[in-house]
Amino acid sequence: MSRMKEISENVIIDSWLEHFLRTPRQFNEPHEADAELIEIPGDSNHYFAITIDTVAEEITTGLYKDPYTMGWVTVMACLSDLAAVGAEPLGMVVSVSVESHRDKTFTKSIAQGMEDACRTLGIFILGGDTNITPTISLTGCAIGIVPRKKVITRCGCKPEDALFITGGVGAGNALGLVRLANMPDDYFPEESYRPVARLKEGQLLRNYASCFMDTSDGLLTTLDQLMRLNGLGFIIHCDWEKILSPQVLEFCNHTKTPHWLMTAGPHGEFELLFTIPSKEENEFLAEAQSHGINPIRLGRVQQTPVVSLVLPSGQRVDVDVAPLRNLLYTVEGDLKRFLKEFRAFGKKWGLEEKMNEN
Amino acid sequence: MSRMKEISENVIIDSWLEHFLRTPRQFNEPHEADAELIEIPGDSNHYFAITIDTVAEEITTGLYKDPYTMGWVTVMACLSDLAAVGAEPLGMVVSVSVESHRDKTFTKSIAQGMEDACRTLGIFILGGDTNITPTISLTGCAIGIVPRKKVITRCGCKPEDALFITGGVGAGNALGLVRLANMPDDYFPEESYRPVARLKEGQLLRNYASCFMDTSDGLLTTLDQLMRLNGLGFIIHCDWEKILSPQVLEFCNHTKTPHWLMTAGPHGEFELLFTIPSKEENEFLAEAQSHGINPIRLGRVQQTPVVSLVLPSGQRVDVDVAPLRNLLYTVEGDLKRFLKEFRAFGKKWGLEEKMNEN
Repeated sequence: MSRMKEISENVIIDSWLEHFLRTPRQFNEPHEADAELIEIPGDSNHYFAITIDTVAEEITTGLYKDPYTMGWVTVMACLSDLAAVGAEPLGMVVSVSVESHRDKTFTKSIAQGMEDACRTLGIFILGGDTNITPTISLTGCAIGIVPRKKVITRCGCKPEDALFITGGVGAGNALGLVRLANMPDDYFPEESYRPVARLKEGQLLRNYASCFMDTSDGLLTTLDQLMRLNGLGFIIHCDWEKILSPQVLEFCNHTKTPHWLMTAGPHGEFELLFTIPSKEENEFLAEAQSHGINPIRLGRVQQTPVVSLVLPSGQRVDVDVAPLRNLLYTVEGDLKRFLKEFRAFGKKWGLEEKMNEN
Repeated sequence: MSRMKEISENVIIDSWLEHFLRTPRQFNEPHEADAELIEIPGDSNHYFAITIDTVAEEITTGLYKDPYTMGWVTVMACLSDLAAVGAEPLGMVVSVSVESHRDKTFTKSIAQGMEDACRTLGIFILGGDTNITPTISLTGCAIGIVPRKKVITRCGCKPEDALFITGGVGAGNALGLVRLANMPDDYFPEESYRPVARLKEGQLLRNYASCFMDTSDGLLTTLDQLMRLNGLGFIIHCDWEKILSPQVLEFCNHTKTPHWLMTAGPHGEFELLFTIPSKEENEFLAEAQSHGINPIRLGRVQQTPVVSLVLPSGQRVDVDVAPLRNLLYTVEGDLKRFLKEFRAFGKKWGLEEKMNEN
């Protein structure tokens, strides 16, 4: 786990956690799961799963302008964490802090985004807290339960396991690029960013997967974190038509944006990235299809702890995702520098040019 | 419940809740409990109790200057909500949003305040989320379990029930007044505001109480809310030496602050206010004492839905707490006006003068 420390975010989380004693009733170690897994007294068959997420930076940096998106994502981010431990949700609570100048239309739209997200998932908001604050901040906390025998975390994949994702990615980063590069809003409208937590998929996956994690921080970040946690690497076949969602492909074509960027940026969506032992792959795929779930095969787990991209040209490029993941800290939050230096990695790795040839 | 709408905060909460469908699996109605009570699938004997609280206004308005206090209160506020439904806590998660300029000493002190509060209560932080935001905001979410048969909420008291509180109050308002009136910090040092959630007391109370609620918004606000929820009133004997904590009494003497203010201000602590059916009072008190719990008898429940203060002089004053509770909204957040107009109620009700005679 020593390579965990190469990532600024992991170090920040650890610097908080080092102050806190851990309960012996907690199943997962730090970083190991998208939600915390805790014994329920008197119930030896289940854990309860709990997670907390704040949507604030996405608002104060101007990534989300529509209050409906703010509410929607507050719910989906939490529920995606539950999906990524295979939990059945019991509900969520929300804490809503808005500026004093906000009118009722604004807060109503946040509430509507939250409620529509809940109805999409069949879950309920149980209660919450409201505050008036100088800058807006929305926090959700969701709880669920998961059978102990079926707990899957981020750890446990083996070399040659098949690597899948529950759906096409890139929408989060397409919206992010529109904002960072000051593109017109309609190049990737904010209302098309309505990611849905993969609850049904998570509950199926807990019967098959050797590890899983959501893509809330983008595909490459997720792969990099799984690599560090498992001490193993991944080979990804960059078939962009399959990996990216149709809207994102269209955005890339229209704006001449290289495809790799849509998997590398830090603003993800809520797909589940997961591994399946190869001998169970066929059975898993048959059951998935019977549930209307059509996962995308990305590649496989490899012994060497590195993320390897096999480009459409057949060329293989090993990428070190750490400097990308740390870039927001390196540039000290300067978003213009962030975009420029981020894109430079594509040139350095020979990705930017290759993609444009496609 | 129509009188609930006379209070701005209740209206704000309702305006959020009206957008949200409620789950049939939730035991409590809105406003009825300090924590949300939800059925646990497969366990017909218990409810999950869950609560979320954000500490932000207390920091941005300058009430808390010490990061240790910020962390301490984030934990205690949540756990007090669990105490006030008689729950046994399972743990909590925290979301910590701090400004980019904060150094490690600052964040370390927040974490230490959180951890010391947890150790005081014998609970654990399970995990969390961190963010960089323009203004600081700390959110905690705690969960626990409570036997279904023993669920007590804010509703259920009857006329003539005895009214108690778990300990002396006023510390929150003493600190608040020091800040609002620009008194020297050492008149009521911030480090003396270390309220402790009454978990042990809550678990005992669930066997006896007809209703309970914590005093996180101050004693009179708590009484007023219970009055509105139950459609009944309270008679309080204003024996300040018993009701206020020793430090608060000393503060009042030193600063010539009228005692009533310490029960009326909106910044409370985490005592439990509760009612006991009169025929069970003796048994309750005997068991409480055997557990080292020494509740303070405040008065009793009355049929008329009004809060009546019986002053040390014997004079009875019926107070309408609504304009006090709504004052922060009436003055639109102008804290100087707030203090001036707040104190004027004491004169209007004949409290300020009486107290000064004491």
